[in-house]
Amino acid sequence: MSFKSLDELRFEIVSLPSGNEEAAHAAAQRQDTLTKPQGSLGRLEELAIWLARWQGRPLPKLDRIKIVVFAGSHGVTAQGVSAFPAEVTAQMVGNFAAGGAAINQLARTVGAQLEVIPLQVETPTGDFTRTVAMSDAEFLHAVTQGYSAVTNDLDLISLGEMGIGNTTTAAALATALFGGSATQWVGRGTGVDDAGLMRKAVAIENGLARHGDALSDPLRIAAALGGRELAAMLGAALAARKLGIPLLLDGFVTTAAVAPLFKVNPDSLAHAMPGHVSAEAGHRRLLDTLGLNPLLDLGMRLGEGSGAAVAINVLRSAVACHNGMASFAEAGISEK
Amino acid sequence: MSFKSLDELRFEIVSLPSGNEEAAHAAAQRQDTLTKPQGSLGRLEELAIWLARWQGRPLPKLDRIKIVVFAGSHGVTAQGVSAFPAEVTAQMVGNFAAGGAAINQLARTVGAQLEVIPLQVETPTGDFTRTVAMSDAEFLHAVTQGYSAVTNDLDLISLGEMGIGNTTTAAALATALFGGSATQWVGRGTGVDDAGLMRKAVAIENGLARHGDALSDPLRIAAALGGRELAAMLGAALAARKLGIPLLLDGFVTTAAVAPLFKVNPDSLAHAMPGHVSAEAGHRRLLDTLGLNPLLDLGMRLGEGSGAAVAINVLRSAVACHNGMASFAEAGISEK
Repeated sequence: MSFKSLDELRFEIVSLPSGNEEAAHAAAQRQDTLTKPQGSLGRLEELAIWLARWQGRPLPKLDRIKIVVFAGSHGVTAQGVSAFPAEVTAQMVGNFAAGGAAINQLARTVGAQLEVIPLQVETPTGDFTRTVAMSDAEFLHAVTQGYSAVTNDLDLISLGEMGIGNTTTAAALATALFGGSATQWVGRGTGVDDAGLMRKAVAIENGLARHGDALSDPLRIAAALGGRELAAMLGAALAARKLGIPLLLDGFVTTAAVAPLFKVNPDSLAHAMPGHVSAEAGHRRLLDTLGLNPLLDLGMRLGEGSGAAVAINVLRSAVACHNGMASFAEAGISEK
Repeated sequence: MSFKSLDELRFEIVSLPSGNEEAAHAAAQRQDTLTKPQGSLGRLEELAIWLARWQGRPLPKLDRIKIVVFAGSHGVTAQGVSAFPAEVTAQMVGNFAAGGAAINQLARTVGAQLEVIPLQVETPTGDFTRTVAMSDAEFLHAVTQGYSAVTNDLDLISLGEMGIGNTTTAAALATALFGGSATQWVGRGTGVDDAGLMRKAVAIENGLARHGDALSDPLRIAAALGGRELAAMLGAALAARKLGIPLLLDGFVTTAAVAPLFKVNPDSLAHAMPGHVSAEAGHRRLLDTLGLNPLLDLGMRLGEGSGAAVAINVLRSAVACHNGMASFAEAGISEK
């Protein structure tokens, strides 16, 4: 798959396969026979059924899980929007390769393959307060790279990102897509002070004013205000849906990255589960806007796919119960 | 350890070791050097420090984890307080032994040893609406059994229970310990209807009226209104504290079981972490009363230690990051 125009991409976003309701129904029926009061496993039951629906099998598997972390650099860092210098993006890519980051430890803990895909991290996108972040061609290239990272042998894909400045990018997308003032969407990211928070909001308002004409099209918003790693996550989320692979979202940046899909087609994130709600200020609002209910709320705000990675074990718990428990009949247990 | 009187037990509850603040401080210092914005792992940081404090080592381990599930039978089932017949308790003990229950799957998923300890499940406790649930001697015997289930080679202990009728028992303890009306503490348990819910509240009010004189002593409350599996969890929680082993709590029944410890000595649950908040109505209120902040909120209400078991992997994630991540200096990454 290689996207040649925004319209071609748009066409793919509105032409999506449905979930497998037969598999979901069979999974739901199985849940009601297992040795527990019906519904007493709460969201573990919901997760088993969700995995069944999107994997298309009544007994879902989690043998092959890939965490993909996309990294990109942001021209808007010139506006003083991050507590860390822009070169940290490339340095952290090195840390991922050396195995020293949080996501390395978490991927190993949950038994997932970790792939880190740097997207021209030595070449920042344009500063969206002055120009477009990406041309259409640059944007579509990043979408295609993300799309290609998803292979159809996976049972689950979990998204993550690294990019100094990208909570500003994410808040810009959220503001442009869903309205409200920038101050409602910005947060402290890696830890900016009040003045930094104000610079983030001002940068976004300047970006919105600069690109006013383009902001009626969700995909053009993603190109003009976004980032390569966000575009790649959009592409990966789309590929997961096309290939029938359930998708775990991470925090504010990941959720903002796939939000243009929702704006083009509200059904397009039905295969996506938010692993957690981040402590980043705008995330809860964004999840509510997209109708997504996070699995975990642990005050995490690191990115890298770290919150989603912790949630993978909740999915493993759900699948273990669903596939492994005895039924009332098998165990000879009295029912109500 | 064998407790001969309520006063001897009470003495042990007020004579508790403190956490190791040196280890906790070293763990907190280490967290602030790791390659992430400070605080960005949220509760994973808190958990690593908590484990360090109660294990007494700056780099906590989770090599040996035991889930202990205590099972007991309840005379109060005669009051029609459960959606399931009382014989299900013994049948579920069989299901645990055969490996068919949720907790079997979850223990395997999280790499924990599972021990199920039935406590005279063929002999229900007294119906607390008519007599004491347990004599002092019976209560202390169950406490001792729970205490003995904890060995000092463990890195973490996680509690669970099985006992048809025991959400009524738990609500009776909560009402007697912390006041309010029984209707504020009862919930639907395995799934009773509105009439069943009313029977639970009436049984508790009758129990409180019956045992009025005894209810000024938290330990006598646990004997008169409690259950063997709850008494055993109280003993196990006390042993964990004495032996320097962090403790994971499960749902409403587990939390109510250890609440008498809190009432005797508010510091006595500092080594305890609630794995989750249950969907059982009174659990959130009880956690708030005890000042405990649950890790997960997944709508679970099964018992068996199932919610705590899912939370074990959150602890594993915390330890993996804490012990495995590189520092800024090691990774050569620019700081703020």
